[in-house]
Order: sequence, then structure tokens, then C-alpha cells
Amino acid sequence: MTQKHTLELRVRYSETDAMGFLHHSNYLTYFEIGRTELFRAQGGNYRRMEELGLFFVVVKVDVRFRKPARYDEVLTLETEISRLTPARLEHCYRLMRGGELLTEGHSVIACINRAGELQRIPEDLVQLTQEP
Amino acid sequence: MTQKHTLELRVRYSETDAMGFLHHSNYLTYFEIGRTELFRAQGGNYRRMEELGLFFVVVKVDVRFRKPARYDEVLTLETEISRLTPARLEHCYRLMRGGELLTEGHSVIACINRAGELQRIPEDLVQLTQEP
Amino acid sequence: MTQKHTLELRVRYSETDAMGFLHHSNYLTYFEIGRTELFRAQGGNYRRMEELGLFFVVVKVDVRFRKPARYDEVLTLETEISRLTPARLEHCYRLMRGGELLTEGHSVIACINRAGELQRIPEDLVQLTQEP
Amino acid sequence: MTQKHTLELRVRYSETDAMGFLHHSNYLTYFEIGRTELFRAQGGNYRRMEELGLFFVVVKVDVRFRKPARYDEVLTLETEISRLTPARLEHCYRLMRGGELLTEGHSVIACINRAGELQRIPEDLVQLTQEP
Repeated sequence: MTQKHTLELRVRYSETDAMGFLHHSNYLTYFEIGRTELFRAQGGNYRRMEELGLFFVVVKVDVRFRKPARYDEVLTLETEISRLTPARLEHCYRLMRGGELLTEGHSVIACINRAGELQRIPEDLVQLTQEP
Repeated sequence: MTQKHTLELRVRYSETDAMGFLHHSNYLTYFEIGRTELFRAQGGNYRRMEELGLFFVVVKVDVRFRKPARYDEVLTLETEISRLTPARLEHCYRLMRGGELLTEGHSVIACINRAGELQRIPEDLVQLTQEP
Repeated sequence: MTQKHTLELRVRYSETDAMGFLHHSNYLTYFEIGRTELFRAQGGNYRRMEELGLFFVVVKVDVRFRKPARYDEVLTLETEISRLTPARLEHCYRLMRGGELLTEGHSVIACINRAGELQRIPEDLVQLTQEP
Repeated sequence: MTQKHTLELRVRYSETDAMGFLHHSNYLTYFEIGRTELFRAQGGNYRRMEELGLFFVVVKVDVRFRKPARYDEVLTLETEISRLTPARLEHCYRLMRGGELLTEGHSVIACINRAGELQRIPEDLVQLTQEP
């Protein structure tokens, strides 16, 4: 079972700031793309999950910014599931420029329903993300 | 009836780009804030309207950028209703820095329901926005 | 000489709004990506141009929103140069979902230096973008 | 010396996502506004600091999301300096809706020059931010 996913992202002009760097809030957006694509690679479909009334919400996130990224650079994002409990999923992220580590992150997401109540992550989803 | 509204906005760091300017996509966000606050000043409540299943969608927008805005500048946005039909509202926008005109815009918004079908703008709303 | 470029974009979660649609301000960001990639396909490098002290600024933009886009949809953006003068470049944009036209746009960009003064678009750049 | 600052922010439509919540990446933007306004209340001027070639970069951030915020809600952000060393500033953030705590955050920022080298935070700035 795929527990890790790698993708490439090119820094958009709209994502830069007056310092000439990728604005730090966009890293959370990049990490979200990483989670989505890992989920897709595992056979999941987040959009369909939402149509069923289940949502993932971010409960906790921490980021360590080591080096800045700049406009038009192509970066590599590695996303990995680091922990899985019945109601929570934890991911680790490493954003690289070539062999150079720019940023590391970690997040905890939880599964809720439309009423905002915590839900067990559905069985078939757990199966998708657990080690065999 | 109020047909015009003025508000102040301070340019956020996250809204700037590598050129050091307010990124041009954010003007559409500023205009939206102008529309919302004009609507509120008229006694409307857009959030409640959405809860009733009615939405305003932007159908058309054009913007003329004259001079750039920079980080931390306090800008003045004037929003005015320029035309009203049963299903559409047109607004004009002028973004100023002191007496200096930076940007002019114009938008057309339409009223739709959850199914995406065009709706008459509700009577009480029309009343709010029509000249006496 | 390439005067037209097509690329695919997947709608990010962070780009959606409470209506469930791609927020309309993001179309300007998409169009900017289209311009950049057309420029790259023509042999240009916008980042290097900035390092030389030349910048493209958006002078005018208009957008016609026909149908909304939603989270996770893969859209096709066609970008085409519609007019070229010594100091200005005009582009047309068509954003499609499959064969369905969602949005059309048009922009005028101008070349400036660090002082914000209008500049002739460099010869080699003109050559890149003119029809033979 | 002011070590704490409180401000109000209204959630913008463009900041919401398809779940109907304030998208989590925007909290980093809110925290940045909190830091800027605390700095201003202390007599600092971040824009002038940048003109002198000194920049604050975010080195580390962590956020704990407790409850979601929604469109048009007026939130209260409390920003406090929690630690000060010669080259780093740490802030704590609490985002409230009325008396209800929605989100807590913590960040570490460092002072760098144009070359990206770590700099001592200027004496007069230290004075501004140290307890008497």
C-alpha cells in the first residue's frame, strides 16, 4: 500500500511576496495538495468523500522553514502518512529544491460529518492507508 | 437609499508579489469586500441570503490598473451600484491612495439558487437597492 | 512561432469558496500562469527578465464567467497572443472543462523598468512573439 | 512597553473554502497581520525596515485548530511576544469568536539582510520589544 507520494510544484507569481519569496502561508496549501494526491494514489477520492458528507479538517500543523523558495522554481514535495488512528491521520511533508531541503511540515487531520462531529475514518479508507 | 459606499483597506503582506506590488488578482477580492459592505450598509446580509439558498455570482468583471499599490498602504475603495435589473446588479469601483486613482473596476453579478438557475433578485433586496 | 499555448490546471481546495466554486479572483492567477507558460514555450524566461530589471504589469483585464468550476476538476486553459505593439502585449484566454467553455478573458500587459517607466518590449522578445 | 495587541478581522468570502470554513492557510496570514500591528503599536514600521534592507522571515510556526470560523464572522486576534533573543522573536496568537477560542498559534521569526544572512535585531527594535 502506498504510504508515500512525491509530486512537483512550480511556484506561481501570485504566491510570491514583496521579499521575492514564496509566501509562507502557501506551504499549507502545498501540503494539502500533497495529502490529496497521496489519497488519490491510494485509490481515494476526496471530492466523493465530501459528497457523502464526510470531511477532513486540519486539527494541527507545524512547519519548519529552512530556506526560501522563489518564483518559477520547480519544487518536489514528499508526503508521507506517519500515523493512523481510528479518527485521525498524520502526515509528514518535505519540500525540496533538487537535493536541498527547504521546508518540513507535519499535520494532523480528523474526519468529521456535516454537523462537525468527529467520525471514524471509514473502513475502506482505513484499509487504504494501513500497512498490510 | 445608499447607493455608494466607501471603506479603507490596508494592503497585507501576503497580498504583495515579487514586484513589491499588490498582486492584481487581489483587486477582485477588494471589490467583493466593497460590494458586501455596500450591501450591509443597505441593510442586507449576504450570509443570511446564502442560508436561504440564494447566491450572487460574478458574471463579468473588468479592471483598469493605473498605478500599483504597495505593502502596508492604506487605500480607499469606493463602491457604487451603477445599474439594477430584475436579475442583475452592476457595480463600479474606484480604488484610491489619497487623491490618486489607482484602479477602476466594473462588475456584473447575477442571483442564482442552489441548482445554479438564475433567480429574480428578491423584492426586498430590489427595494433596498433601487433609487426612491 | 508559437502564438498559442494550452495547459491543464487542477482546481485546488484552497481556491474554492463557500459556494463550492473556484473563487473568481483565481481566474486572474490562472491566466497569469497561461501567459508565463506561453512565454516559456516561445523561449522566454520571465524570471530572467525580472533579474534584468524589466517587468510585465497588467494594465487591463476583463473576464466573462459563463459556468463555475469546482474542486478537483481538471481544466484546460488556452492562452493566445491577440495583439502586439512596441510596449504592450494582449492575450486572450479560454478556460474549458472538456468541451465546455467556462470562462473567457482578455488582458493587456505593459513592459516597465524598476522606476515604473514604460519600456519598449526588448527586440528579441518582440521577435519571439511576432508572426513570421 | 506594549507586548500584546488585539485586533478584529472579518472573514472574507475569498478566504472561505468549499467546506464553508475559513481555509486553514489563511490563519498564517492573520497571524502576520497580528505581528505587524503589534510592531506598529510599539512604534515600529516594518515597511521602513524592509527599505533599510532588513527583513523578518518566519522560521517556525505551529497552529492548533480547535473550531472553524465562517464567512463574515468578526474574529478577535490576540498577538503577544512570548520570547526575544538577539536574532529571534517569538509570538503567540489566540483567535477568538466572542469568548470562544477558535485557534492558537505560535511562531518564531528571524531577522535577515538582503543576502539572506541572519542579523541581530536592531538595538532600537530590541528596546521596543523588551520588557522594561
